Amino acid sequence: MNTFGNRFRLTTFGESHGPAIGGVIDGCPAGLAVDYVLLEAEMTRRHVGAHATTRHESDNIEFLSGIYDGKTLGTPIAFIIRNSDARSSDYDGLDKLLRPGHADFTTLQRYGIRDPRGGGRASGRETAVRVAAGAIAKMILNGKGISITATASCGTPAENDSTGGTIECTIEGVPAGLGNPIFDKLNARLAAAMMSIPSAIGFEMGTGFDAAQMRGSEFRDNWCVSGGHVATTTNHCGGIQGGISNGMPITFRTAFHPVVTIPQPTECLAPDHTLTTVTPAGRHDRCHLPRTVVVVEAMAALTIVDFVV
Amino acid sequence: MNTFGNRFRLTTFGESHGPAIGGVIDGCPAGLAVDYVLLEAEMTRRHVGAHATTRHESDNIEFLSGIYDGKTLGTPIAFIIRNSDARSSDYDGLDKLLRPGHADFTTLQRYGIRDPRGGGRASGRETAVRVAAGAIAKMILNGKGISITATASCGTPAENDSTGGTIECTIEGVPAGLGNPIFDKLNARLAAAMMSIPSAIGFEMGTGFDAAQMRGSEFRDNWCVSGGHVATTTNHCGGIQGGISNGMPITFRTAFHPVVTIPQPTECLAPDHTLTTVTPAGRHDRCHLPRTVVVVEAMAALTIVDFVV
Amino acid sequence: MNTFGNRFRLTTFGESHGPAIGGVIDGCPAGLAVDYVLLEAEMTRRHVGAHATTRHESDNIEFLSGIYDGKTLGTPIAFIIRNSDARSSDYDGLDKLLRPGHADFTTLQRYGIRDPRGGGRASGRETAVRVAAGAIAKMILNGKGISITATASCGTPAENDSTGGTIECTIEGVPAGLGNPIFDKLNARLAAAMMSIPSAIGFEMGTGFDAAQMRGSEFRDNWCVSGGHVATTTNHCGGIQGGISNGMPITFRTAFHPVVTIPQPTECLAPDHTLTTVTPAGRHDRCHLPRTVVVVEAMAALTIVDFVV
Amino acid sequence: MNTFGNRFRLTTFGESHGPAIGGVIDGCPAGLAVDYVLLEAEMTRRHVGAHATTRHESDNIEFLSGIYDGKTLGTPIAFIIRNSDARSSDYDGLDKLLRPGHADFTTLQRYGIRDPRGGGRASGRETAVRVAAGAIAKMILNGKGISITATASCGTPAENDSTGGTIECTIEGVPAGLGNPIFDKLNARLAAAMMSIPSAIGFEMGTGFDAAQMRGSEFRDNWCVSGGHVATTTNHCGGIQGGISNGMPITFRTAFHPVVTIPQPTECLAPDHTLTTVTPAGRHDRCHLPRTVVVVEAMAALTIVDFVV
Repeated sequence: MNTFGNRFRLTTFGESHGPAIGGVIDGCPAGLAVDYVLLEAEMTRRHVGAHATTRHESDNIEFLSGIYDGKTLGTPIAFIIRNSDARSSDYDGLDKLLRPGHADFTTLQRYGIRDPRGGGRASGRETAVRVAAGAIAKMILNGKGISITATASCGTPAENDSTGGTIECTIEGVPAGLGNPIFDKLNARLAAAMMSIPSAIGFEMGTGFDAAQMRGSEFRDNWCVSGGHVATTTNHCGGIQGGISNGMPITFRTAFHPVVTIPQPTECLAPDHTLTTVTPAGRHDRCHLPRTVVVVEAMAALTIVDFVV
Repeated sequence: MNTFGNRFRLTTFGESHGPAIGGVIDGCPAGLAVDYVLLEAEMTRRHVGAHATTRHESDNIEFLSGIYDGKTLGTPIAFIIRNSDARSSDYDGLDKLLRPGHADFTTLQRYGIRDPRGGGRASGRETAVRVAAGAIAKMILNGKGISITATASCGTPAENDSTGGTIECTIEGVPAGLGNPIFDKLNARLAAAMMSIPSAIGFEMGTGFDAAQMRGSEFRDNWCVSGGHVATTTNHCGGIQGGISNGMPITFRTAFHPVVTIPQPTECLAPDHTLTTVTPAGRHDRCHLPRTVVVVEAMAALTIVDFVV
Repeated sequence: MNTFGNRFRLTTFGESHGPAIGGVIDGCPAGLAVDYVLLEAEMTRRHVGAHATTRHESDNIEFLSGIYDGKTLGTPIAFIIRNSDARSSDYDGLDKLLRPGHADFTTLQRYGIRDPRGGGRASGRETAVRVAAGAIAKMILNGKGISITATASCGTPAENDSTGGTIECTIEGVPAGLGNPIFDKLNARLAAAMMSIPSAIGFEMGTGFDAAQMRGSEFRDNWCVSGGHVATTTNHCGGIQGGISNGMPITFRTAFHPVVTIPQPTECLAPDHTLTTVTPAGRHDRCHLPRTVVVVEAMAALTIVDFVV
Repeated sequence: MNTFGNRFRLTTFGESHGPAIGGVIDGCPAGLAVDYVLLEAEMTRRHVGAHATTRHESDNIEFLSGIYDGKTLGTPIAFIIRNSDARSSDYDGLDKLLRPGHADFTTLQRYGIRDPRGGGRASGRETAVRVAAGAIAKMILNGKGISITATASCGTPAENDSTGGTIECTIEGVPAGLGNPIFDKLNARLAAAMMSIPSAIGFEMGTGFDAAQMRGSEFRDNWCVSGGHVATTTNHCGGIQGGISNGMPITFRTAFHPVVTIPQPTECLAPDHTLTTVTPAGRHDRCHLPRTVVVVEAMAALTIVDFVV
């Protein structure tokens, strides 16, 4: 349940205000030189555009296993990030209250118990682990000429309010023939990967929803052969046909809804099922998309690497 | 790879012009009375709105195991559908040619070999197996008060051309607490399920892509408690929060691109990487969405049933 | 639950007196030429030494998918074996009665329902599917220079009684480096494979239980290098160290208890929990080991092939 | 590969001389009160009968997630044990040398690289993680009236040498109906669990290898009904029939070979494939079975708990 991937498997753990968050990567090939500079750069990207929320968040990664002398051993790579800047007092007013739009209520329905401190397991802080693992996946993909680039497009900023947006992602260098027919399609895997990111609410490949209004004669990506290389003149399908990559760039877009914690009066659900109005004091981004870009790339990297290791 | 689900697992097999297509369901609870009327009704729905393509398609299901005296045994339920109306001559002109927009090229890249007869494994005929398994899933869900309804919205019909469209689906009666946080979110599972349907190209929960332009104060689904029952005043999130159902109806929409085989001159890729123009003679729908509605429902049923068995 | 393997996955189905038994192989590499002579020879070996039980048992395999023009497509290979010689009347006296030593009682406890005809899903007939799939696995292994040979050693034959025995198996040609440390050890996989065979009751690698009485200085397999080739002077460990093959022949032995249906008065458990004495009229082997040899080889092949595809 | 279980899943990590070993339990039910006294008692049992090897080994468990206020949250439980007493100098002489009977050679063949410090991932120290997770599994099983008891039987002690032995295990309180037919038999799972323990070399259920010499009339466990309770007069099968528990105590025995590192001259394989004689200076047990008893129980607990959560 907390594991992503079949061959390159990431298992994550940790609550936002517990001792640590972290992950275990099982299936990373042996002999990979760990690029700590890339790793740190990726972790830093997760703070781009953030203000108060993350200023004091410490993302120092401690590796516990699987690496010896700077190289992976083929054994599980475990790493942890301590939760040093908990500041759980910010959340005190909300401790027993279930916020609207959050996972508070559903977590309680699912488990009958929950860690009330700042979102617990459902906190966005968990994505730091994905970024760290995604960085290791990127090291492998880079070695195979595969690159991943995402860009965010935010809604209009709003005073004392939040906005959503979309993130577009392109994966270049994926050879034709990656993926599986039927259920385990590469696009199905990418969809699941993206929809697993907090606040993701939509996903489309290539032309996406616009294709619903196109005709077959327009949509069809025609062949284009030059110098023995097979390509298509257009890329409406986004580089995947029948669940398998066709060698064109893989393109997709993910929609994110705005964060639901805003500095406005908020009606929360109390244990006795009455409603109580509070105004959140915690530090939250107006638009989380700039820092989600690297999460999208990480999940894309984890998805692709699973097919190439 | 050809298996869907973890607890209620469907494995499908079969090429469109081989001896048979079929499936094995592993994990169906014992003691379920098989509703053959519902099963046949669902299979028939897959032919709604179809013309020449399916007129002669025989979808007689033969059960081989797992059922005794009209009840499931808890053992694997295997069933097959014979391919009686192959008419492979329709496809003769395309046998060695790789059609644009199809899985022909990617299948060959993936496996180095392919069944050239009418799409082979990648044919839409495979969805008949999903519908049959989905019907059994629905029998279980019906017993738990969970119902699934989808409706299609096609693009404008076009002379000698095809159109895409969207299918909206609502799942009612799902109790709060279904799904998992992090990677195995219920919405991530639904996204993967939908994107695994042939020609699916986009997926969105609730408000979907429109949420990208909304503000947090608009998007947030506020609490609404009456008579001890917790609900929300709006349902922008589509019934899932933090990956777990919240008890509201689950709503999502899937976009489908138009079918790419149209009765117009088509440039196909020959084995020597030259292009050859052919005009497909096969029978194909102008808009496949009416018959895809039951496939969407089947995949939704297979997704939900996996969490309740 | 009814699936064996991770990469080369066999899913089996079928009750002994239902319409058919069969299997689906998912993950078989594309382009393998199917050796039907080997397949039939293996199926025949399952009848060696059998008398009345199997004389009329028809094991005609019908392939339904995954093979085109004599070669595997990389798609699921489904096959069925019809149950033509059911003769369920032989079992009539036992229909509602639970036989001692069989899976009748436990199946009922597990599922609350069962197919009473001749063992149903738990019948030894199910092993025919394993042998068929094992034959395909052997085709792959043969191409890699890996061979599997098993031999049976029965107990003393007994008048109107049955005997158990042991089957020794040697796998030659396995390169060093196959398997995994910790939980997914190659020996752990082999143990599970062997213990999954009906009436298996013990398993040992190499020297096995005798090693419990040896000293480290005796047991230790010392190095023996000649011509750059690393081997060991003895092979007490049976070719696997730390869960991974070391290049020596892999040797193991499986113990089987005698079949528990014998032509003697048998106290069966009735639905009202009284005991009723019946004398089984069905046809059963005195010693099932000669025909289990090929099942052992099949399960060994399925275990090894999962690591090399 | 480093994960055990399907529903209650333990993933372990760590090299014996790296920063830490540890595990992540995914699927532990929410609301379980963690019994730290039981946990510590189990960890201590792993040191019973040990001498120098473990005297200074620190097994302090630090929980990082999944527990709040002494209760499990249903989220992953991560825990680590720091490797404080590495003393890697003891192994210096063996750093580049591959010891006979160890996983040194096979690890290198498998991964092309290895951590040379004291066994690395293949070290027996990894079993501490299994014991910790097994203790949590026992807490769940205890609550269901299921208890597990193992006892060791060592070979004759030897001067400057090591001995193997057998460990017998009984699981009481398992209700009838646990396990699965065909491949995923409860006995197959137990076999795999036991064979995954370092130096395990044989496994048998109930009467085990002796059953190979018995007749059906002797082996068969006859019914014995009293007061509505169904039992058997004997328990030769060890409590499992057709892969499913029958309500009798589950009994099995595991054989362990002697540890292969002994304080005697040992021919090791050098990187240039020559042999070099060294005499190990490290601290090793003469007979490791007394401290393996709790590991056997832990693996049995992890196997059973996977069927009851």
